[in-house]
Amino acid sequence: MGKTYRYETDIPESFTDFDPDKYAHEVREWVDQLVPSNAKVALSGSGGVDSTTLAYALHPILGSRLYVYFIDDGLRRIIGGRPEADVTAGMFGTFENFEVIHTADKVIPALEGYSSGELKRQIMIDRYLEASNRFLERLGALFVLDGTIKADIVTKKARKQLQHNLDLAYDVDKLEPLASLFKPHVRRLGRYAGLPEEFVHKIPCPGPAMLLRVGGRFERDKLDVIKEANDLFEQGIEEYMRAITGKPYEYDPDTGVREPFQYFAYTIDPAMHRFGSLEGKYSDIAGTAVECLVTDTKAMFFDPAEEEQRRALYEPTLWINAEKFPDYDVLWRIREEAEKDNYPRVVIQLSEGSGRYPIIMKAVNSSDAMSALSMELPIDMLQETAGELYDMGALKTGYEISKKPPASIELF
Amino acid sequence: MGKTYRYETDIPESFTDFDPDKYAHEVREWVDQLVPSNAKVALSGSGGVDSTTLAYALHPILGSRLYVYFIDDGLRRIIGGRPEADVTAGMFGTFENFEVIHTADKVIPALEGYSSGELKRQIMIDRYLEASNRFLERLGALFVLDGTIKADIVTKKARKQLQHNLDLAYDVDKLEPLASLFKPHVRRLGRYAGLPEEFVHKIPCPGPAMLLRVGGRFERDKLDVIKEANDLFEQGIEEYMRAITGKPYEYDPDTGVREPFQYFAYTIDPAMHRFGSLEGKYSDIAGTAVECLVTDTKAMFFDPAEEEQRRALYEPTLWINAEKFPDYDVLWRIREEAEKDNYPRVVIQLSEGSGRYPIIMKAVNSSDAMSALSMELPIDMLQETAGELYDMGALKTGYEISKKPPASIELF
Repeated sequence: MGKTYRYETDIPESFTDFDPDKYAHEVREWVDQLVPSNAKVALSGSGGVDSTTLAYALHPILGSRLYVYFIDDGLRRIIGGRPEADVTAGMFGTFENFEVIHTADKVIPALEGYSSGELKRQIMIDRYLEASNRFLERLGALFVLDGTIKADIVTKKARKQLQHNLDLAYDVDKLEPLASLFKPHVRRLGRYAGLPEEFVHKIPCPGPAMLLRVGGRFERDKLDVIKEANDLFEQGIEEYMRAITGKPYEYDPDTGVREPFQYFAYTIDPAMHRFGSLEGKYSDIAGTAVECLVTDTKAMFFDPAEEEQRRALYEPTLWINAEKFPDYDVLWRIREEAEKDNYPRVVIQLSEGSGRYPIIMKAVNSSDAMSALSMELPIDMLQETAGELYDMGALKTGYEISKKPPASIELF
Repeated sequence: MGKTYRYETDIPESFTDFDPDKYAHEVREWVDQLVPSNAKVALSGSGGVDSTTLAYALHPILGSRLYVYFIDDGLRRIIGGRPEADVTAGMFGTFENFEVIHTADKVIPALEGYSSGELKRQIMIDRYLEASNRFLERLGALFVLDGTIKADIVTKKARKQLQHNLDLAYDVDKLEPLASLFKPHVRRLGRYAGLPEEFVHKIPCPGPAMLLRVGGRFERDKLDVIKEANDLFEQGIEEYMRAITGKPYEYDPDTGVREPFQYFAYTIDPAMHRFGSLEGKYSDIAGTAVECLVTDTKAMFFDPAEEEQRRALYEPTLWINAEKFPDYDVLWRIREEAEKDNYPRVVIQLSEGSGRYPIIMKAVNSSDAMSALSMELPIDMLQETAGELYDMGALKTGYEISKKPPASIELF
């Protein structure tokens, strides 16, 4: 296993004081000192903002020594109807070296049947490393560049039990030039490095991608359904934002914050258990009859120093089925009580169908992914999308109203 | 929810100093003081040694005021080819009041599809309480007697995350007259109270019974297969013991310890993931090629004060497939290394078949269920049973070699 080099420097407290030109120059100098002039450098491009920004920031000094590779493991998204591999390949049209490596036939069968979030991640990462290391060896690369940012590092540290899975064991030395930046800084650096405006503001999608949206037992069908559902909801949110603001998202140039921060659809196992004892309490809050169900799906814990939150790790999701969708102030009170009852993840039901998988929508606002709040999306917008998800084969649809912490943004 | 009364007294350090006559008298006096002379008292009989001993110990003073009920939730064992409900009903032939309550049609469908051990337990307990409280109300019972023993209380305390599930919320007051005893004491008390010798020495089977032997996703088929497999292995062990000692088990009258302490077969989800990185290490120890697989099944943590052990809670099982079954001294070294690698639960493969579920055998020695060691069963005895399990539809068969702590005896 190779060494890891992180570029660590102080970032100004005020976002507007951040100088992408200065950072780009420092990073290039730092990389230049570490990498011999005849060395091949590989870059694992996930298609996301971080790794693509890194590629664009370093292309000016590495040129044809830079080899960007994209691993299509079958877990990548569908974006506006197109496979993410195609969208990403389009981004690197001007690069000398770009390659898509297809591994879905090795990854999807290996995941089949597993339920544990940690193990699913571990399997994906194992296969990813296997493919990466084979590529690095074939290439004869001396280094691999990795788009890890500060938020990843902080979050990895907090999520103790996954840490050893996430410190990727590449055979060659690894460089992490973006290790000091949070998302808004990366976006500015990306724009500075020449990435198109709509790209630098695209929503973040973590490395395991759609794997994170298949809650519970992994099945290929489930993955296929949720890929389509996720694309539908992404488009739905962007359309909604366009209708009210004229743009698919809002961007605050003073803070670098994009609203919404992240939005996606996910599925869980269909088994749900009715909890009579909770019902009365939540019916009181909602002012109407409420059915409380719990599901098998586990939430990620947030802070290992907090005993209470650690225990929340393996708590199931609380699924609330009210006679009518409550007002948001009522929903926030429900969420608060659910947290006290050790249900960090709460979903409010929108509709019931006859398909195979529950489909849940989630949209959050956040400045740095360290904390996040669910958006107050209008009920008619949610219900309209729920109708389309119904046609897609949903068993039930819901909107998640959890807060981070204690719940994580993604499922695990 | 009713109050809980525990009979708490000091038990002599030396087992031979324990006086079952004295304990039985004290307990009867204690119950007599708490229970008005016209009150009906229900006793939830699980068919196990603890609750049956309790019934026999209190029958002399409660007589026809005692109502023993057995809940057949579909999760009970098959014992020597007979359903446990029948075996248990036979035990209470001389009692005025005994009733079997059938709830399988409510319990089994409610469990279908769940993977989380905690949630499966919670569902079972919910349904159990629902049925119990309905029975208590119908009966007009003032008290319910519960066979909880000291080991249960200590273990419940340690297993923090399950505690609230296990403190059963009966609507009426609960009496726990055996709350000061460990298993060997209960066995002596049972014999004293008139239970047959072969019954007081029967193997312990925890309340959730066969539920604990369905690892991973709950499916009715899986339960059916494992009920048969468990009965087969129980009979196989007893036959083996008879062949070498003339009796189905050995009993030490000085310590009250029965050998073997517990033995059962269980199943897990069939998905297994190959871990290349571990292979070399275990091949070195085994002195032969070894394949390391990990499964989704989770081990229970033991001591919440021990950070390392807590983290082991959600580690998967390590499944070792060696070219030939290693000697036991080699197996113990493998187990030791696996514990260091954070795999508290280790299974060594016996055979591969073409059925649907892996079937794993486990047999342990223990004096008090607080710590336990796997037995050194002869490989030919294991392989013979594995052959029969193969005919029963096993996908793979294995023998578990874990130690408690860090692994629990049962799966979760």
